[in-house]
Amino acid sequence: METLEELDDFVANGHKVYLPHLSVECVVFGYENKQLKVLLIKFLNLGWGVPGGYIKRNEGLTLAASRILTERTTLENIFLKQFYIFGDSAHRNSDERREYWDRLSEGNWLAARTMSIGFYALIDCAEAIIKQDIIAEDYKWVDVNEIPNDLLMDHNEIIEKALLALRNQIFHEPIGYNLLPEKFTLPEIQALYETILNKTFDRRNFSNKLLSMGIIVKLDEKRNIGQHRSPYLYRFHQDNYLNALSEGIVHAL
Amino acid sequence: METLEELDDFVANGHKVYLPHLSVECVVFGYENKQLKVLLIKFLNLGWGVPGGYIKRNEGLTLAASRILTERTTLENIFLKQFYIFGDSAHRNSDERREYWDRLSEGNWLAARTMSIGFYALIDCAEAIIKQDIIAEDYKWVDVNEIPNDLLMDHNEIIEKALLALRNQIFHEPIGYNLLPEKFTLPEIQALYETILNKTFDRRNFSNKLLSMGIIVKLDEKRNIGQHRSPYLYRFHQDNYLNALSEGIVHAL
Repeated sequence: METLEELDDFVANGHKVYLPHLSVECVVFGYENKQLKVLLIKFLNLGWGVPGGYIKRNEGLTLAASRILTERTTLENIFLKQFYIFGDSAHRNSDERREYWDRLSEGNWLAARTMSIGFYALIDCAEAIIKQDIIAEDYKWVDVNEIPNDLLMDHNEIIEKALLALRNQIFHEPIGYNLLPEKFTLPEIQALYETILNKTFDRRNFSNKLLSMGIIVKLDEKRNIGQHRSPYLYRFHQDNYLNALSEGIVHAL
Repeated sequence: METLEELDDFVANGHKVYLPHLSVECVVFGYENKQLKVLLIKFLNLGWGVPGGYIKRNEGLTLAASRILTERTTLENIFLKQFYIFGDSAHRNSDERREYWDRLSEGNWLAARTMSIGFYALIDCAEAIIKQDIIAEDYKWVDVNEIPNDLLMDHNEIIEKALLALRNQIFHEPIGYNLLPEKFTLPEIQALYETILNKTFDRRNFSNKLLSMGIIVKLDEKRNIGQHRSPYLYRFHQDNYLNALSEGIVHAL
């Protein structure tokens, strides 16, 4: 939305285009300089939170999340995964939204009870061009350990649950695949896992484990990074990765 | 719903009580005689599927799922976990529902696009008393390996995704805790895991793994099941269980 007129039209008539009672919130993770970061947007009159939007009446749910993120980041084909629907507070949005956003009258579709469907996305921060508009005044990438605790509505809880999902799924979803270059060294993938899980691992055990689970494959190729330093490169084994968790545990048993 | 009049009133006026565009579907798992079973209901004019219902306008989402299952099974405090929202087919319900359920006129709230929020539940089949009514004509408990492939709408997909979630979460959600008695023997818990994961494990490795992950604790108590046969009893360590997956993998690394 570029103008105040467009915003007024969305508030007054948006329910003809979008489903009421449902929204999508996207926790966008990026990995850069051994930091895991989350994209925050400063919304007009609402404060900082994660990007989101609404589902068109004839649009698939995942397509809606994908469209919302493409519009916001200009990136196509973003890796997205739904992780939770936030609907336990029956009054979650109505009162708070009306308070924050004073143009919502009683009975307006945006003031009705709304459940949020949480998606997390994995992108390359360096490639994203974050679009600002009349409702998104500003943005920033924030380290997951430094998220302000006063985000709008339940957005702190949404980020916490996304992070938990990411950590639980790091061994059976193609998370590294979306955050590392196609070919990487063992120290690079170990740094990624250590950053996401906020732990340190023994170097030898870590690589043996990933290799024995079949998640990564050693290439017959090295990277030259200096005299006497030319580590082997690795890549993900995509098929194995997708089923690694249950298989991995089963092997471990 | 007991009478046809109540059903007619629900179809005509239900949207005043319930949120439109959303339903809850519950995949109810029970474990009995080393079989993992799912509860199927035969719905009037619709065929076999999993039990479900709608969310009251002022009711929390998890409370709604819990109410729906308590009404259907007479059990209180059922272990429930949401696992997915089915919303990718923008036409999922409207056409199919109208076809199946011919009392729905154009514009009726039940004929509108509806996303389903999937919950799985773990119960003791032996304790459940399944309630039938005007829309639920019959019910049966079916082994997960013998689910008919012609369930109504997308209920086959819903059961498949629930089973996948159950298998992925068996090491970090209190699943065994809800399907075994408070105290159990090692063969009993191994049979449960083998049934759910549809695999066999080495006896010694399996118990060592669960003990080293801290999921179960050996008790100073035995069960007498015959001459020369008095296996030790075990119980779950609930706190450890909840975080067992990531911790378990971290330890393994």
